Amino acid sequence: MADKRFFTVAGPFTLGQLAEITGSELSDPAAASRVVNDVAPLQEANEDQITFLDNRKYADYFRNSKAAAVFVKPEMAGEAPAGTVTLKNKNPYKAYALAAQAFYPSKVREEYRAPTAVIDPTATIGPNCHIEHGVVIGKNVKIGANCRIQAQAVIRDGVEIGDDSDVGVNCYISHAIIGKKLKLHPGAVIGRQGFGFAIDPTGYIPVPQLGRVLIEDDVEIGANSTVDRGSGPDTVIGRGTRIDNLVQLGHNVKIGKFCVIVSQTGISGSTQLGDYVMTGGQSGFAGHLQIGSGAKVAAQSGVMRDVGSQEEVMGSPAVPIRQFMRQTAMASKMATKKGNEE
Amino acid sequence: MADKRFFTVAGPFTLGQLAEITGSELSDPAAASRVVNDVAPLQEANEDQITFLDNRKYADYFRNSKAAAVFVKPEMAGEAPAGTVTLKNKNPYKAYALAAQAFYPSKVREEYRAPTAVIDPTATIGPNCHIEHGVVIGKNVKIGANCRIQAQAVIRDGVEIGDDSDVGVNCYISHAIIGKKLKLHPGAVIGRQGFGFAIDPTGYIPVPQLGRVLIEDDVEIGANSTVDRGSGPDTVIGRGTRIDNLVQLGHNVKIGKFCVIVSQTGISGSTQLGDYVMTGGQSGFAGHLQIGSGAKVAAQSGVMRDVGSQEEVMGSPAVPIRQFMRQTAMASKMATKKGNEE
Amino acid sequence: MADKRFFTVAGPFTLGQLAEITGSELSDPAAASRVVNDVAPLQEANEDQITFLDNRKYADYFRNSKAAAVFVKPEMAGEAPAGTVTLKNKNPYKAYALAAQAFYPSKVREEYRAPTAVIDPTATIGPNCHIEHGVVIGKNVKIGANCRIQAQAVIRDGVEIGDDSDVGVNCYISHAIIGKKLKLHPGAVIGRQGFGFAIDPTGYIPVPQLGRVLIEDDVEIGANSTVDRGSGPDTVIGRGTRIDNLVQLGHNVKIGKFCVIVSQTGISGSTQLGDYVMTGGQSGFAGHLQIGSGAKVAAQSGVMRDVGSQEEVMGSPAVPIRQFMRQTAMASKMATKKGNEE
Repeated sequence: MADKRFFTVAGPFTLGQLAEITGSELSDPAAASRVVNDVAPLQEANEDQITFLDNRKYADYFRNSKAAAVFVKPEMAGEAPAGTVTLKNKNPYKAYALAAQAFYPSKVREEYRAPTAVIDPTATIGPNCHIEHGVVIGKNVKIGANCRIQAQAVIRDGVEIGDDSDVGVNCYISHAIIGKKLKLHPGAVIGRQGFGFAIDPTGYIPVPQLGRVLIEDDVEIGANSTVDRGSGPDTVIGRGTRIDNLVQLGHNVKIGKFCVIVSQTGISGSTQLGDYVMTGGQSGFAGHLQIGSGAKVAAQSGVMRDVGSQEEVMGSPAVPIRQFMRQTAMASKMATKKGNEE
Repeated sequence: MADKRFFTVAGPFTLGQLAEITGSELSDPAAASRVVNDVAPLQEANEDQITFLDNRKYADYFRNSKAAAVFVKPEMAGEAPAGTVTLKNKNPYKAYALAAQAFYPSKVREEYRAPTAVIDPTATIGPNCHIEHGVVIGKNVKIGANCRIQAQAVIRDGVEIGDDSDVGVNCYISHAIIGKKLKLHPGAVIGRQGFGFAIDPTGYIPVPQLGRVLIEDDVEIGANSTVDRGSGPDTVIGRGTRIDNLVQLGHNVKIGKFCVIVSQTGISGSTQLGDYVMTGGQSGFAGHLQIGSGAKVAAQSGVMRDVGSQEEVMGSPAVPIRQFMRQTAMASKMATKKGNEE
Repeated sequence: MADKRFFTVAGPFTLGQLAEITGSELSDPAAASRVVNDVAPLQEANEDQITFLDNRKYADYFRNSKAAAVFVKPEMAGEAPAGTVTLKNKNPYKAYALAAQAFYPSKVREEYRAPTAVIDPTATIGPNCHIEHGVVIGKNVKIGANCRIQAQAVIRDGVEIGDDSDVGVNCYISHAIIGKKLKLHPGAVIGRQGFGFAIDPTGYIPVPQLGRVLIEDDVEIGANSTVDRGSGPDTVIGRGTRIDNLVQLGHNVKIGKFCVIVSQTGISGSTQLGDYVMTGGQSGFAGHLQIGSGAKVAAQSGVMRDVGSQEEVMGSPAVPIRQFMRQTAMASKMATKKGNEE
């Protein structure tokens, strides 16, 4: 059960309610009235809790589960232990997510202004916004309804943020126009001036960075990530995209819709990603590249050329994943042979 | 045109004025009195704006430009479309930078102390400093003239910072002596105690870190970058050096003058870089190395040995760039052949 | 000598006192009453200072040292210059650490509450805690004795932190139960919700992250590092572990005791490290792996499979270090041969 010091559980719910909430089918319709009190991980779930099996790797835990009920793919339902009800769903992890949201609903925001927050009188702030200690909000800022601006966040002049957004502790936002449902984790830095200068024998001449950061609806950006503003063109992050911690996006980068950018990825200036692109942790992209929609870039890859739509690449420099696997296998085989000869 | 919510344009300027400001030559002296209102990117510039062509890759945009005027290398000037004036310059990007600085001059700082800033009475602060909300300035700190200390920055006892410096939101500075024109982006952490401990069966014994961070004039350090102070010797960053976001410099690192350290680079303790060294994104350096002046280290390289002056290296472990290219080409060829044989 | 603007030296001490404090043996017992005023690096130490030699690479500096005294391994003691006393110790770096701690003792904390700190009345705070400007402490937080909470740190509801802890400037802590002697450097983010969502054609469905971060005694976490809380299971960091700057730990990661995690390492969700594991800078770990106790992972390695106890791996993908060395040597040799043939 989630630690009560940090979480407040709602419910209980019947399995019938949970089947409806999650669009699942009960293996035993007679179990619809059975009550569960909480969600729990597969290994820990007890007879009052519901859990899920998503990965066949953990099937043994499933077969020995003590859980009241399990969200599971239809083809696995037959392997449930006696006494455990299955809720069949093609996407058990999604079903679990929806059930967990029911047990742990988001808190409704209450209108609040910390007395220490400094809000410029020209700023416009929607209803039911919760603004914490030490926040600084500049001139002509526009913030929508139901937003939370957490302690010590700084929002510079002219920034606009849509409804239902959540700006984390110590975030910095400038030169940005942002849609609804932004989720910005602590320490993220959005819209600083990018790394732009002309090289000259007398030193580096700063180039004024005259673009913005445009963030569409429903974007999440992780802790201590940095997104530079455009140099003239804008830096853009498309709808639904998820960005993890400690990621760097250079100026003029364009990220499509529903991309997933894993931790410590770095994308150099003016590179463009299509929609549904996934980048593994610590991957890096040179500047001015085109990465097609649906491309997958493995962790630690170093992308130095364009990547086609749906293409999967790996390695530094990144090559098609099958080629990378062959190169790796061959290097390993030759090194072993060489080792044997020594 | 730059978004008026964020930028205020100066001007207009005549092409004659801009030629003089940037040291360029007008292709048509009769155009000297023609007026432009703004700078703009090459693809977007219109008949009231000036732009630049730096990279031949974008020559087609130039040939079809609608811009009033374009900064361009002398040898490209002949390809301008009719109606577009060229301003010939060997370094068009620098000329653009200077023109953009004219249109978007830095704001003059006005003396300001936020009522919530906590400034120790023993601190010395020069004229025309702008100190924002929540700032903490410790004992015996010395800050020069015309500085901006942005919201919630913390400057610890004894730190010295020269004139015309700008310390970003949520920055932390301790144990540091810093020259003029520092530009520190949000969340940068300068002078924390480095990663120093003696290994012992009873655990790790902390080694007091008794050095400082010395930063010369005109240095820029990016958002959420971290620079540890020396362990006894100092950590040093030379004049004019530019450091990007999310970079890590370990204790006792010495960076020469006019180096460029791209995002997510990590430099281990006691490694020394000469002048004009460039490091690509996500490159890493082992400790106690010597990197010669003018060396270039490609993105994602892992430098495990000294690098000579002017040497260019790539790969992990890093090798001379021509060797890396041969290794990569050979691995690719062999993997392809092997693939064909399958 | 350490800069008096930043450090206050204690002492002086006799060599007899320092031999006792550090468990070293004086080469010349008659020197026990000789007085030294400070510690210093080997190259800089003068006739009033004590230093150390740990690495034979610096033996020439030792032979020409002007230091009053040097901590040194017994077998090197004979090479000391005339006039320099040696203090023989199997671990001279540890001896130096203990001597430096004597000259530069930690300050005793004094009870302090900055008037701008916002502390919920339900929070419990032990004696002699020093709480700085702008700090926010939530409901039911428990903080032990002798802690320092530095400026603008935010500690969310329910968090517990043990005695003698030090939370840096701008840190964020939520959903965490932490032991004694925590040392958290500026900008670290502990306990944010991890990167968890179910993939669905309609977008990414957030999965409530219901676990915690559990940190045992005597853990250090570097500047701007990020530790996500568990998704249901907890994220755990074992006793005595040292984590450097800009490190990312995903949800459900478990780190054993006395591990050393160097800067910019990234560890993906649910991966588990045993005790005494060392990871080099910029190394990366895929999710759901088991890394055995005593394993060593070289800098920039990409770990994609389990690593056995005491195993040493390197490369991306990581392989046993001897295999990596052979692969690298072979690639280099073939590229050279190929180059010669051109």
